[in-house]
Amino acid sequence: MNPPEILPDALVMLDYVGIGVFAVSGALLAAEKKQTLVTFIFFAVITGVGGGTLRDLLIGAPVFWVHTNGTLLICIGAALGVWFLSKKAAAERALLWFDAVGLASYATYGAAKALNYAVAPVPAFAMGVMTACVGGIIRDVLAGEPSILLRPELYVTAAALAAGLLVILTLAAAPPALAALGAGLAGFSLRAAAIARGLKLPAYDR
Amino acid sequence: MNPPEILPDALVMLDYVGIGVFAVSGALLAAEKKQTLVTFIFFAVITGVGGGTLRDLLIGAPVFWVHTNGTLLICIGAALGVWFLSKKAAAERALLWFDAVGLASYATYGAAKALNYAVAPVPAFAMGVMTACVGGIIRDVLAGEPSILLRPELYVTAAALAAGLLVILTLAAAPPALAALGAGLAGFSLRAAAIARGLKLPAYDR
Amino acid sequence: MNPPEILPDALVMLDYVGIGVFAVSGALLAAEKKQTLVTFIFFAVITGVGGGTLRDLLIGAPVFWVHTNGTLLICIGAALGVWFLSKKAAAERALLWFDAVGLASYATYGAAKALNYAVAPVPAFAMGVMTACVGGIIRDVLAGEPSILLRPELYVTAAALAAGLLVILTLAAAPPALAALGAGLAGFSLRAAAIARGLKLPAYDR
Repeated sequence: MNPPEILPDALVMLDYVGIGVFAVSGALLAAEKKQTLVTFIFFAVITGVGGGTLRDLLIGAPVFWVHTNGTLLICIGAALGVWFLSKKAAAERALLWFDAVGLASYATYGAAKALNYAVAPVPAFAMGVMTACVGGIIRDVLAGEPSILLRPELYVTAAALAAGLLVILTLAAAPPALAALGAGLAGFSLRAAAIARGLKLPAYDR
Repeated sequence: MNPPEILPDALVMLDYVGIGVFAVSGALLAAEKKQTLVTFIFFAVITGVGGGTLRDLLIGAPVFWVHTNGTLLICIGAALGVWFLSKKAAAERALLWFDAVGLASYATYGAAKALNYAVAPVPAFAMGVMTACVGGIIRDVLAGEPSILLRPELYVTAAALAAGLLVILTLAAAPPALAALGAGLAGFSLRAAAIARGLKLPAYDR
Repeated sequence: MNPPEILPDALVMLDYVGIGVFAVSGALLAAEKKQTLVTFIFFAVITGVGGGTLRDLLIGAPVFWVHTNGTLLICIGAALGVWFLSKKAAAERALLWFDAVGLASYATYGAAKALNYAVAPVPAFAMGVMTACVGGIIRDVLAGEPSILLRPELYVTAAALAAGLLVILTLAAAPPALAALGAGLAGFSLRAAAIARGLKLPAYDR
């Protein structure tokens, strides 16, 4: 495995954004389920770091939040913020949008980090997709919600667009910051359109 | 940890068979649930590589699909094949049999790979069992199906037979290809009998 | 990563206690669900080693049960014990108490092992909490039980008390055996009070 290069700042920013908004989305689901503050924190942490943890284990990187205090404190802060500030009416809608930002950020950053660890292109693409979706999947399984995986809405597809673009642009030697920005925006736009207009994929019906 | 020796061809074959048939079984469950093509692929990948991924993480091996494009392409191909070719009537029955082949192959290969990484006999046996069952368990949890673990049917037991025989035959210095063939066939036969005749274990009833 | 120091005997004891009682709790849930002996063993193993396995993967330690036969044999023995000895009436109550002992032991040992691997204080605390809870969470998800996470009862909080005290006492340079004993007893006492008197946290209700 090659020693990883330093990731450009734009990507590191995406990582923090992804952690923060996924943590908020976890706490918002806890709010919707009328849970305690401890469960808010548990859901915020699992949703915020779940996907990236799986990614790091799979590519053989040290798990990103284990040797620093900051990442978990961000998640705990997000849970406290939702506990003290959120209003019921806004929670469900806000959850969708926070989740969309997290999805696009994590798909982009996950694919980029995998390429930096010399992962082959197809698994690097998969790493972006899976790790963007895994935090939310675990959150939903633990909360007893039906998984987004089983709904025809464009969700995994948006992560696939972001991760796929990042891999293609990187292989085409685009500047890293530009590749990250383009891939992230494309993924977020597709997910936003799916939320706003209910875009769906056709289902199997034989 | 000893450097692993090269696994004999018969075992490498079992690995590819396991990945392919588990991927098909994941896609068939997606078909049964009338999902989209993206979900077909997601389920095919998770079921195809889930068990082996856990095995590799536990024994400290590099995760087998991360540094090659081929494994994921097999899973994606399996999903496309089911999407375009399968007929409804046949799907449920086919799922059972593909799953049975995957179960026996993975239990055998998983135990053999663990022994090759100098894992102790009892955990090597467990590695075969758990990793043969984990792909299907994750598939069922994500699809909201009741886990096979909770049914009295012989399922985990068939994986245990294959993994146990492989460990015993290897400790008894049997030729690797023979051990793999014997263990895989025994496990598959037991699972086939369970499917065909409804063999069950007695349940706890106090 | 620093080479880990030898953990004091009091902590190693806690580890074995945690494995044994969590294995028993897994088997008791299988009994409650009227499962087969194979499922008893599967649940005992997953609950007994699940949390510690995640901890070791996250901190980059070799997974603790992979290079020894003893750990799994303890879990299998626990499953056989419950299968042959348990009485229906006692099972549900016993499950709660075995789980409580496991929770406190694992939270304490998990945080201590993480500190020994030079993990930063906040993640070391989280490692104690998450790994104490993860075995039981997986057990409940697989059994189709509503997760303890969604109940207002003090559960994660008790693990947090044990893990937090262990980290604080260790940073304050307390003797390791004393820190382990104090943290474990405090966590167990809080959980015991929650079971005996139904202590609850306030839930979010906006």
